[in-house]
Amino acid sequence: MLKSMRQRPGKTHGNETGELALIEQIRARAARGGSGELRLGIGDDCALLRPKTGEELAVTTDLSLQDRHFRLDWHPAEAVGHRALARGLSDLAAVGARPVAAFLSLGLPRELTRARGKGRAWVDRFLDGLLALAELHQTPLAGGDLSESPLAAADIVLIGAVPRGRALLRRGARAGDGIYVTGRLGGAATGLVRLGNLAAAGKAGRIPARDNEALAAHLYPQPRIAQGLALQRRGLATAAMDLSDGLSIDLARLCRESGLAAEVDAATLPIAPGAILEQALHGGEDYELLFTAAAGTKLPRHLGGVSLTRIGKMVRPSSKKPMVTLVSEDGRQALEAKGWEHFA
Amino acid sequence: MLKSMRQRPGKTHGNETGELALIEQIRARAARGGSGELRLGIGDDCALLRPKTGEELAVTTDLSLQDRHFRLDWHPAEAVGHRALARGLSDLAAVGARPVAAFLSLGLPRELTRARGKGRAWVDRFLDGLLALAELHQTPLAGGDLSESPLAAADIVLIGAVPRGRALLRRGARAGDGIYVTGRLGGAATGLVRLGNLAAAGKAGRIPARDNEALAAHLYPQPRIAQGLALQRRGLATAAMDLSDGLSIDLARLCRESGLAAEVDAATLPIAPGAILEQALHGGEDYELLFTAAAGTKLPRHLGGVSLTRIGKMVRPSSKKPMVTLVSEDGRQALEAKGWEHFA
Repeated sequence: MLKSMRQRPGKTHGNETGELALIEQIRARAARGGSGELRLGIGDDCALLRPKTGEELAVTTDLSLQDRHFRLDWHPAEAVGHRALARGLSDLAAVGARPVAAFLSLGLPRELTRARGKGRAWVDRFLDGLLALAELHQTPLAGGDLSESPLAAADIVLIGAVPRGRALLRRGARAGDGIYVTGRLGGAATGLVRLGNLAAAGKAGRIPARDNEALAAHLYPQPRIAQGLALQRRGLATAAMDLSDGLSIDLARLCRESGLAAEVDAATLPIAPGAILEQALHGGEDYELLFTAAAGTKLPRHLGGVSLTRIGKMVRPSSKKPMVTLVSEDGRQALEAKGWEHFA
Repeated sequence: MLKSMRQRPGKTHGNETGELALIEQIRARAARGGSGELRLGIGDDCALLRPKTGEELAVTTDLSLQDRHFRLDWHPAEAVGHRALARGLSDLAAVGARPVAAFLSLGLPRELTRARGKGRAWVDRFLDGLLALAELHQTPLAGGDLSESPLAAADIVLIGAVPRGRALLRRGARAGDGIYVTGRLGGAATGLVRLGNLAAAGKAGRIPARDNEALAAHLYPQPRIAQGLALQRRGLATAAMDLSDGLSIDLARLCRESGLAAEVDAATLPIAPGAILEQALHGGEDYELLFTAAAGTKLPRHLGGVSLTRIGKMVRPSSKKPMVTLVSEDGRQALEAKGWEHFA
């Protein structure tokens, strides 16, 4: 813990400098706890959380690695921090949990901790992005660990709370349920392509206004915390998950956990502006919610300002049909589960 | 989460192989939950924990990095897994918490996931070591994340439970309290030196029997869960922490959090066999407990088979004296806080 953040002193012994200076800086920007559910934040061997009566805790961890989940020469440091936290928050949204605390384990090359000229250090800008999103979702940074590392690595742990037995799971769908998504799909994949093009042209730092929306979908995805909470509180969804790896692969997982098959109507897919069908089906990192609702459930068209779209239905599985069928004007075809390739 | 472990599919699309095969393997060895406090383990967007009434949760994260916390050519894979979990369990021991669940975020080079010849894959042996220690302390592996990475990295998250308001903190010591440690000090530092010597001689894989104990102190440290729980339940300690970075640096932290100074009696230090005073004072990674107890408290000489040794006392701070004073036959001197250098 950033003993929490615990230092791993390097060559500067005797006086605690280097990593410790960074730790103190993070401590100053993080939560000390003492009120509400966070009884004790950064500064001891563990953080202490006091859950509310009648609630259970949802826990998720997400590892973000340089050159795999982000590139230092493509992604602004603020976006790397935002995206690392967004991945974890999106997992909480998927189960309908309210965020309680975040923990950050950070491995960093020394040069990313140092200010360059008049500019601020990479890690400061990383924390700007992470903490701005944390504040938006009232999620205190309660601890973590810090180490020097040849490659940048950030593991984010999110802890959320949900009333006992009320968490949205992947396994709850029933045959006949409608399949829904929040927002629009394929925007993050489109944004990543554009970011790559800008980087190839040496313009990753200067983003044309026309690319703003698509790039934001990739660089600053918005975890659907409010939508997940609303689905959970109103009892609208029978199953839910977040779209982190792409609709085709994630829907296949929901099918597997629920023991069902699915049919997706291509014409109904809410494709993000500039994206193509392929990106909406297989592009990952949109961090929208995918959920099912009983046939008779009346769903609003929007939830917290974000659209809800019915894209298909859950059906009984059979050895004669694929797990996910895509129905389009070309007929019915198996929707192959393709994952998003990141930087592999 | 090892959607929990969530795959990041690489170049093998369509059929989920590679990372997913490893994920399925870990799932098979991990906890699915459903009983007790772990309601839901690996397999959904989040794990779900149901805390017991009257308890609060202790949370700690520890990042272990190749070439910083371990070396592939020095450390057996089993020891890397054991040590990664031991660091987190030791944090729970430090606050007197009972382990509830562990989460593992793992970044691995592809070759460490593959069996070599007749031997098992590095990651299998890593999990052997981690899961053996987890079983010893009844700690289910409840989730995590997995990614390909050029360097091996393991972030361990431990969640424990402690009765509300009863956690042992660093800040509770009072002037006049005795200072105690569990077990013996300097063993891990001695073991690391011997491991380095064996590696330099090309014998890291063949350990002479005479080196067993010292090497075990480094390779397989035993987190003092039972001792931390006993101190907490019997109300014996006023403050506590674990010795992860070395007595000199860790005691200075306890002093700072408690707003006090300390005097250590060199003659009373329980130095591990083969270790020298310097290693007992500054060697890290012993994962023994450091705690304080009121002057009138009667402490047993052993707790759960591990010795308790009084090594000094807490005193009022003053601008005229150092934070930690070492008292020996040479007189009184300031004990400089020196950290352990790992592989920096």
